[in-house]
Amino acid sequence: MEPKIATIGLDVGGTKTSGVLLSPEDVLRERERIPTKRSSRESVVGGILDVCERLSERAEVLGLEVAAIGVGFAGFIDFSQGLVIYSPNLPIEDLRLKDVLEERLSMPAFVDNDANVAALAESRWGAGRSVEHMVHITLGTGIGGGVIIDRQLYRGCIGTAAEIGHIVISAGGPLCFCGARGCFEAMASGTAIERMALEAATANPDSPLARLRDRKGHLDVQLLSEAAREGDPLALDIFLQAGYSLGVGIANLINIFNPERVVLSGGVTNVLDLLEERMQVAVKEIAVKPSRESTRIVTSELQGEEVGARGAALLAMELSGRFPVPE
Amino acid sequence: MEPKIATIGLDVGGTKTSGVLLSPEDVLRERERIPTKRSSRESVVGGILDVCERLSERAEVLGLEVAAIGVGFAGFIDFSQGLVIYSPNLPIEDLRLKDVLEERLSMPAFVDNDANVAALAESRWGAGRSVEHMVHITLGTGIGGGVIIDRQLYRGCIGTAAEIGHIVISAGGPLCFCGARGCFEAMASGTAIERMALEAATANPDSPLARLRDRKGHLDVQLLSEAAREGDPLALDIFLQAGYSLGVGIANLINIFNPERVVLSGGVTNVLDLLEERMQVAVKEIAVKPSRESTRIVTSELQGEEVGARGAALLAMELSGRFPVPE
Repeated sequence: MEPKIATIGLDVGGTKTSGVLLSPEDVLRERERIPTKRSSRESVVGGILDVCERLSERAEVLGLEVAAIGVGFAGFIDFSQGLVIYSPNLPIEDLRLKDVLEERLSMPAFVDNDANVAALAESRWGAGRSVEHMVHITLGTGIGGGVIIDRQLYRGCIGTAAEIGHIVISAGGPLCFCGARGCFEAMASGTAIERMALEAATANPDSPLARLRDRKGHLDVQLLSEAAREGDPLALDIFLQAGYSLGVGIANLINIFNPERVVLSGGVTNVLDLLEERMQVAVKEIAVKPSRESTRIVTSELQGEEVGARGAALLAMELSGRFPVPE
Repeated sequence: MEPKIATIGLDVGGTKTSGVLLSPEDVLRERERIPTKRSSRESVVGGILDVCERLSERAEVLGLEVAAIGVGFAGFIDFSQGLVIYSPNLPIEDLRLKDVLEERLSMPAFVDNDANVAALAESRWGAGRSVEHMVHITLGTGIGGGVIIDRQLYRGCIGTAAEIGHIVISAGGPLCFCGARGCFEAMASGTAIERMALEAATANPDSPLARLRDRKGHLDVQLLSEAAREGDPLALDIFLQAGYSLGVGIANLINIFNPERVVLSGGVTNVLDLLEERMQVAVKEIAVKPSRESTRIVTSELQGEEVGARGAALLAMELSGRFPVPE
């Protein structure tokens, strides 16, 4: 009889902490979600431990042995030490999360960047299934990246590689969250699209676009996309600009990695129809021909809100040594 | 008695074709150099075969068995097929150079990009000796790159990865040789420095800088650097600009690869003293802190004009299976 083992995977983000109990082959057994308690380091860690403990209890009820825990954390991670160096969105610095989890839960734990575990899941179960080299781009409020080389995550010397949101594509351009100017993230993320829309609204106070702002002065990208699809010229222009920037970033990654696939995921892919034409123009202009012709740019094939947590559970499976390793 | 074996390495560039006969541990036994005969595809190949045959004859005289041939070629290479897809500087397209060499010389041949073999040499014998992950940047008339991951060259899916000269760092910026705008190469190469100097000379026709132009209208980077060191403000400003762009490109690569080392080589490193301060400013602004703190930016430790050919000979050694492979 096969051993009934499973892993716990967690996705720790700025707003929520999701967890799954996963059997091999991506079979979801249980799920759990809480708001990330952002008030302090202790509250964030407390939330993580809570989710793990609840999922462990359910595993026991189901007769499953939990072999390991994987965590995808929104921040800079020293993977080999399981250390959260710091998080831009949470009050966390120098947190030895691997040690904390292993001590409290008495099982192996592995901590990686959230964008990395998403890329791993895409590589095994999604649009990167059949390829050796893949660049995975998460287009959301920010831009995250994961790079798969020879079917393995590439992490660099301490684990902070693939910070593709912070490659500068327009030196001296708009200020990024990170403090630099002209980052890919500052030009093509959901936040960048909203910023451009707000600038256009301010410059054209009587335009239909200006009326899309809510009471707090925000401008929702989904609303903006509806306006663009109805032909609003200001809204359309913003997507053309962001689309071109998206293409510049993708072309840079094609020139660097010559990957078989570039996979786009995240909320901004919902408006990809508005971005795609100019994105392709930039890729054609910038990506060198042999690399361009050997790459396909596709969207994620993974569905569901637990993708990050499932990727983290997959990481734990592969690193625990308790599951068959894919070729 | 140890078998006395050696490899032949060739560096085929736009102006010259260099060859070496190399024993293990980088012991140079013979060298050969001819101008690259650029008139036709046949003349380029003829030159390559000539150099190989002359070096083979010398090997025989020395009692050495040639185990394999390696070629570093200035162009886009499909490494697995040993195919020169095309060369920007030579009349070559779709040349199955590996097949041609193996047929004519009856020994294994390996063909790679010239920047890749230079990176390989640096990884084994130079500034990258002790590290797993390294980015090698050749700063000359253009900007070439080679990426070492886990001590091996990273080539991507068909072999055209690491085209780091053509990552766009300033979208819409100056026109690059490749047809795109704002490439790293168009902002920080020797050619870019000369272009900026010529623009400054045109804008300031009575300046000392304007008098540095030769009769053909060229402006030598070495002369420009002397003017800058003597305090010429226009000349200094050009190096400040190019230095910043160099830092942007390096920071992007640090964010992507989190390498232990970034190694700078090529002619432009002769003026690195003028570029370095602003380069470091850009790196500090753009490279994320954990990656920046785990990377050292250094210059090449390899000397001599045959570095490229020695790298190609090393490639042949490692791939021939006839020499002990380094750990």
